[in-house]
Amino acid sequence: MEKLYDLLILGGGPAGLTAAIYAGRYNMKTLVVANRFGGTANLAGEVENWPGYIGPGIDLMRTIKAQAKRFGAEFLETDVKTVMKNGGAPWGVPSAQMASTDADKVGKFVLNYDGKEVRGKSLLIALGTENRQLNIPGEKEFLGKGVSYCATCDGNFFKNKTVAVIGGADSAAKAALYLADICKKVYIIYRKNEMRCEPISLSKIRDNDKIEIFYHSNPTEIFGDKVVMGLKILQEKPDEDAIEKILNVDGVFIEVGATPAIDVVKNLGLKMKDGYIVTDKKTKTNIDGVFAAGDVTNTAMRQMISAAGEGAIAAKMAHEFLMGK
Amino acid sequence: MEKLYDLLILGGGPAGLTAAIYAGRYNMKTLVVANRFGGTANLAGEVENWPGYIGPGIDLMRTIKAQAKRFGAEFLETDVKTVMKNGGAPWGVPSAQMASTDADKVGKFVLNYDGKEVRGKSLLIALGTENRQLNIPGEKEFLGKGVSYCATCDGNFFKNKTVAVIGGADSAAKAALYLADICKKVYIIYRKNEMRCEPISLSKIRDNDKIEIFYHSNPTEIFGDKVVMGLKILQEKPDEDAIEKILNVDGVFIEVGATPAIDVVKNLGLKMKDGYIVTDKKTKTNIDGVFAAGDVTNTAMRQMISAAGEGAIAAKMAHEFLMGK
Repeated sequence: MEKLYDLLILGGGPAGLTAAIYAGRYNMKTLVVANRFGGTANLAGEVENWPGYIGPGIDLMRTIKAQAKRFGAEFLETDVKTVMKNGGAPWGVPSAQMASTDADKVGKFVLNYDGKEVRGKSLLIALGTENRQLNIPGEKEFLGKGVSYCATCDGNFFKNKTVAVIGGADSAAKAALYLADICKKVYIIYRKNEMRCEPISLSKIRDNDKIEIFYHSNPTEIFGDKVVMGLKILQEKPDEDAIEKILNVDGVFIEVGATPAIDVVKNLGLKMKDGYIVTDKKTKTNIDGVFAAGDVTNTAMRQMISAAGEGAIAAKMAHEFLMGK
Repeated sequence: MEKLYDLLILGGGPAGLTAAIYAGRYNMKTLVVANRFGGTANLAGEVENWPGYIGPGIDLMRTIKAQAKRFGAEFLETDVKTVMKNGGAPWGVPSAQMASTDADKVGKFVLNYDGKEVRGKSLLIALGTENRQLNIPGEKEFLGKGVSYCATCDGNFFKNKTVAVIGGADSAAKAALYLADICKKVYIIYRKNEMRCEPISLSKIRDNDKIEIFYHSNPTEIFGDKVVMGLKILQEKPDEDAIEKILNVDGVFIEVGATPAIDVVKNLGLKMKDGYIVTDKKTKTNIDGVFAAGDVTNTAMRQMISAAGEGAIAAKMAHEFLMGK
């Protein structure tokens, strides 16, 4: 592995790997850094809205990674500790101690991991999002013992069993429909009075008599012995007394959204909105040489295909940045 | 075929067909109208930068169209004559004669073709661009057999080979520099006495000893057997006799520009820039209910994957528009 790259890409999902394909085509020396290549796209059991592909998400992501490799991208699977702007120090000298003007030779951005570092002349942040948690008793204790954040990964463990899905947006609706094909019974627990998923999913949910929805409801505790045995929820309908209900379930699928994964880049001074990195139509951030693409940004749509499109644009923009334009 | 659609999509390339996939997922009654499904993407002999797919462009586009169909999109292959805003007339009454307020029932946009019409409550323009042509012998015959309108798409097929780039503007300069990284030798053929690209590109071209420019020159014929073998050019320097030259090349990249395909929508009153439809990050145009995606817009990158990403976003935005958001 080299020490200095034209482009460092943080994140190995659709945005990061598509950027790597294009960066390769622009002949940029490129390193993609991720703690898990494929990202959350791996978790999609059956992808059916990726143009040109229908099948498991993990296979699609492997193919895309292989394409990026074919164009010369390098890969580093690690947990990144920090990413910082480089003061311009040569190798081995902490950047704070020197201010060389030759940032092109020593890299504008320094990425630290595992006691080591790599540097980049430009940086693409494509870190995606992380699953949000409920923070209720039992959630951590039963993780992997009935509690899951990924229906398509773990659904098959609940064949002919009863499960609950927490949430009311697209991911919750899709999880419920997926699980209804496998399980005996699926409860949806949602705090509002109506699901806010895609209408096509809502019609399917209504037509599926295995699925039962509890609106105005919040989960309060997941309980069990060695594995999950039940879920307590509190239903608070308007103008009615709150009721605690106990649902006997074997699994609880938590689908309450995701938060942008920006911890390792938070020291860069990026402009943010609602926790997401603000980008323009060209994937540029407020920092020269730093681009961002996909779910980690304030994008119009959090889908694999739109993330990929932004990744491609980001590679082009990084290339133009390096060309001095 | 219905008369009134939730969404009319003009254009059957990556942007239009991806939008159709997503529109189907949003349960919108959708009609995709194109004079040739697949668009210019069909012309890419071997697509290798579409994440998750390597193979002929035409096969990829057929798969994407089939996916859109699976989600309920309808298709109309025709030459559209005009698209106009609907004054609100009921069916059969010319829109100029009436002004009903119930645009939701009669459609906001009227598309005319072949003496007939369909109407849409929202409109997506994804008509792409048309490559400007040289109109010389061999250009059509060797398309995909050495003649290309897209260096980024097809450059990799000419590794260590000799190619010619026709044109002198930015796209030609970028194509030449891109190809010089891949090819053994790159000729630029330009009719004027100096490239009119960005100066930085021109300096790089001058510094690159793989690139040779023929000024005052026009291509007159592309010749070959099964594939391109050479290019005839006519060089006419001021105050000198014209000279015909024969260049032995394996590829000819025609980079004399592309024009956005906006003829049928030119009466809508869209805001344009340099001939392209101006959109924001959410694919919105200046007209309520009209969205635009892909190469026909002032997008940051004219590539299939970025067009597809914009198409997906446009479907979401059209859905939100219809939901009154």
